[in-house]
Amino acid sequence: MQALRWHGRGELRLEEVPEPAAPEPGQAVVEVAYCGICGTDLHEYRHGPNLIRTSPHPLTGLAPPITLGHEFSGRVVALGSPVPGVEEGTRVAVDPCLRCGTCRWCRHGEYHICAKGGSVGLASPGAFARLVTVPVEGLVPVPDGVSDELAALAEPLAVGLHAVRRAAVRPGDHALLLGAGPIGIAVLMALKLAGAAGIYVSEPAPARAKRAAELGATEVFDPAHTDVRREVFLRTGRVGPDVVIEATGRPELAALAVTTVRRGGRAVLAGISGEHVSVPLTQIVPFERTVLGSLGYNFDIPRVLDLIATARFDPTPLLTGVYPLSRGPEAFAELESGSHLKILLAPEER
Amino acid sequence: MQALRWHGRGELRLEEVPEPAAPEPGQAVVEVAYCGICGTDLHEYRHGPNLIRTSPHPLTGLAPPITLGHEFSGRVVALGSPVPGVEEGTRVAVDPCLRCGTCRWCRHGEYHICAKGGSVGLASPGAFARLVTVPVEGLVPVPDGVSDELAALAEPLAVGLHAVRRAAVRPGDHALLLGAGPIGIAVLMALKLAGAAGIYVSEPAPARAKRAAELGATEVFDPAHTDVRREVFLRTGRVGPDVVIEATGRPELAALAVTTVRRGGRAVLAGISGEHVSVPLTQIVPFERTVLGSLGYNFDIPRVLDLIATARFDPTPLLTGVYPLSRGPEAFAELESGSHLKILLAPEER
Repeated sequence: MQALRWHGRGELRLEEVPEPAAPEPGQAVVEVAYCGICGTDLHEYRHGPNLIRTSPHPLTGLAPPITLGHEFSGRVVALGSPVPGVEEGTRVAVDPCLRCGTCRWCRHGEYHICAKGGSVGLASPGAFARLVTVPVEGLVPVPDGVSDELAALAEPLAVGLHAVRRAAVRPGDHALLLGAGPIGIAVLMALKLAGAAGIYVSEPAPARAKRAAELGATEVFDPAHTDVRREVFLRTGRVGPDVVIEATGRPELAALAVTTVRRGGRAVLAGISGEHVSVPLTQIVPFERTVLGSLGYNFDIPRVLDLIATARFDPTPLLTGVYPLSRGPEAFAELESGSHLKILLAPEER
Repeated sequence: MQALRWHGRGELRLEEVPEPAAPEPGQAVVEVAYCGICGTDLHEYRHGPNLIRTSPHPLTGLAPPITLGHEFSGRVVALGSPVPGVEEGTRVAVDPCLRCGTCRWCRHGEYHICAKGGSVGLASPGAFARLVTVPVEGLVPVPDGVSDELAALAEPLAVGLHAVRRAAVRPGDHALLLGAGPIGIAVLMALKLAGAAGIYVSEPAPARAKRAAELGATEVFDPAHTDVRREVFLRTGRVGPDVVIEATGRPELAALAVTTVRRGGRAVLAGISGEHVSVPLTQIVPFERTVLGSLGYNFDIPRVLDLIATARFDPTPLLTGVYPLSRGPEAFAELESGSHLKILLAPEER
């Protein structure tokens, strides 16, 4: 079958690979309907290896080249173990977290921070191909009425939902969101859903700023020309936002999140980079701020599908393009131009 | 009356000052029984001004010289407003927080992070004197059976209790405490009370390490000769501590707290300095760590007095010396030698 594989920084190749073997116990094979291109995929392509390990992954033993793709929907074609509510043919979205199943975190249900964890499409072959092998724990049946396209968006939406749940946003809170890329937009949607009274967004790219405004931001600031901290301070009665969510991974914005949230407030860092965040202790201790890391999702993909099925979440605005898998490299280039939010790739082979 | 006043770095003078005026509405005058010397006092003396403002304080208008002393007990001698349960003669400990009473935080009961807040003994004349004026909100009646000496220790104990409450320590948790000075020991006592299963302490000073072991630490490490992170990791089943509490204010220990707590764990920063804490974002986001500032106390002094009265807290080991106020400068020098935990000063005048 065709697969879009990462060979190294800047090297993405559409090539022929063997189909997956029959699933072992605990595994399933899914025929991919749609798979989104994640910022992580772009980052691995342009600046990686970052999450991809060049030596064999401790959990899977896999080393590059590796088929990317971890935001996907499809239907189950083979089950290595019985799964309640799932059979061959069941439409599914997939939680792509790989887990050891035995560490302290897996045993506590915190599989997303498994001591050895990884992700389908980064530590095992991903869904930029017709068939993909996944752990059965990751299979999430898609409710009737939710299309395969929207189901493929559940993964990035889950990242936003998880960050908002980490932030413990309560109805009536005022929130500042730093960055309105795909994850930022998912955070924005979850903030709306959580009943935030004010949703302030800092985003320099005009197209993204415009989209954030259309999707319900109270006000969008261009940080290049605005003192965002001051403007939000003034708009919250000289208090500051209850919650700040950083969705870019830029360390200076992580520091801004910590120093902008109100005294006693919660700053959630949802963007990753290898750089240091550096903040004066006087900005944390005397103001009793709380800083929370947020990684991926933890049982959030079924929540998102529920929310889509009940029309509480409409991910349609996230979806700005669908390409056949064979045009994957072109889609990566398109995304880099910055006008898209989310592009799905669809394998043509059936 | 005699008062021990801060005039500037290295300048502490015992001198004659006027007695306080009759209390205005919302104020009370307390005759001091005992007042402890805080690490903050020492720090202001040696390295200040730090919390002391050299220009008039926004809340009180006070500028140095200033009478220090904010850890105290005594009896009420004059009330400017009626206070339920308090009359002239009532024995009290005092929550020395000064507050504006009108900001968002005061209105929410978070008076300890008042936008303009300060403390008796730093922003208004303190209790290293026979008489001290305090806000009536700060008066906490001392239960029968709790001595004036122990009541004067309620304030530093409240700092430890507050940090442990911020950490949301649960029975059975494993905790690492960085620093076993007076606040560290208060944290240790609160960790014991909270039912921590393992209390690991990092403390280089032998006398402090010994005292931590005597007061119930599971194990005390000398960080000069031990890789504390690794040892605690091994002793917690290669998981790491659920909670780390930093009680020194050293930025490298604040960073150690964040990078040592287990994935998904809570690092509480209770020590302040003007320096930056610098941590890789990869140590916060992918491990979903939570970092919480902890400042002073918020309704914790009555809790401590309750706990002392019911014999759940025994602060006696904290108390290593009582000096007459006139020997205050000598007591400051003694404390700097490092063999003491807490010295109380007692005004001789009555």
